[in-house]
Amino acid sequence: MQEIERNRVAIALIHHPVLGRKGETIGSAVTNLDLHDIARIARTYGIARYFVVTPYDDQQKLVTEILAHWQSGHGSTYNPARKEAFSVVEMAKSLDEAIAAMTNMFKRKPALVTTSANTQKSSVDYVQARHRINGGEPTLLVFGTAHGLAAEVTSRADYTLPAISGRTGYNHLSVRSAAAIICDRLLGEAIN
Amino acid sequence: MQEIERNRVAIALIHHPVLGRKGETIGSAVTNLDLHDIARIARTYGIARYFVVTPYDDQQKLVTEILAHWQSGHGSTYNPARKEAFSVVEMAKSLDEAIAAMTNMFKRKPALVTTSANTQKSSVDYVQARHRINGGEPTLLVFGTAHGLAAEVTSRADYTLPAISGRTGYNHLSVRSAAAIICDRLLGEAIN
Repeated sequence: MQEIERNRVAIALIHHPVLGRKGETIGSAVTNLDLHDIARIARTYGIARYFVVTPYDDQQKLVTEILAHWQSGHGSTYNPARKEAFSVVEMAKSLDEAIAAMTNMFKRKPALVTTSANTQKSSVDYVQARHRINGGEPTLLVFGTAHGLAAEVTSRADYTLPAISGRTGYNHLSVRSAAAIICDRLLGEAIN
Repeated sequence: MQEIERNRVAIALIHHPVLGRKGETIGSAVTNLDLHDIARIARTYGIARYFVVTPYDDQQKLVTEILAHWQSGHGSTYNPARKEAFSVVEMAKSLDEAIAAMTNMFKRKPALVTTSANTQKSSVDYVQARHRINGGEPTLLVFGTAHGLAAEVTSRADYTLPAISGRTGYNHLSVRSAAAIICDRLLGEAIN
């Protein structure tokens, strides 16, 4: 099987604006494990960049410290495989900053693709999305923390991926699990 | 699409015997997030039971306390969706105890299926494994924490699933991500 280096896909993990328990717009705190697990997923599937998006100064400081530890600090020598995963992680202050960085990287504005635990309008199925990505379209996969992306993000999407179904009707995966499954569906080896 | 209730598949997450950094056999500590993320995955894909396997008294006590909180304590009323996820979680003192519980559940010894970041002998591909599961074979998916399952577990496998490939050669996913992807490949809706 042919191995790839990097593809034209990036991930943005949004901490604001996202939804709270009652559907209100909130900002969430960055969690260390979202950084680690999704960095490892990103590196596994040849994702070009994983943007951790937060508008809050203190959270940006936290992200910067964690990145420094794993990209060039003690963590990078203690665990080289984790350093490699963190090499694709970047802090961004807003979704627009992530889009600008990606546009600069590929000289073209990326397709903004949102994901949701609920089926949305303008859905593109996984086979079609995979085809678009394989065709070279720069693609920014946008994930929401807490109870998902707020409407001011989803309304900007070029297309939306269908909710992940395990055929039980239960749709409460962690964002880490959703990112793993979606990357495998879009970028993994074809298995059937 | 037809929805299912439960299938004849269970997960066992092994904390001993697993491998350490240098390939030595160790026991690992239970992490709270492995319980939550994999419980949510299990419930999403209709997994019959998620066994958290640890031989250590103090770790068994911790697992029992976390389960009580989410199955019947404050957590169960605070977050009913999480209660539902934890309804499939069960503590086991050994892999044999998990096998016995599953044998009792389905009146038949389950196929023991191990997973590995490295390709093993006696691999069965995902299409074949999916076919066996759909055919009704009780199946226990065994995952290792730390650096993976020790040989005394993998040597007992009826078959092994191929390593997850993102076509980059990097094979350092978290066990949470690996469980998410493997359940989606074996039990998710067919997407292509």
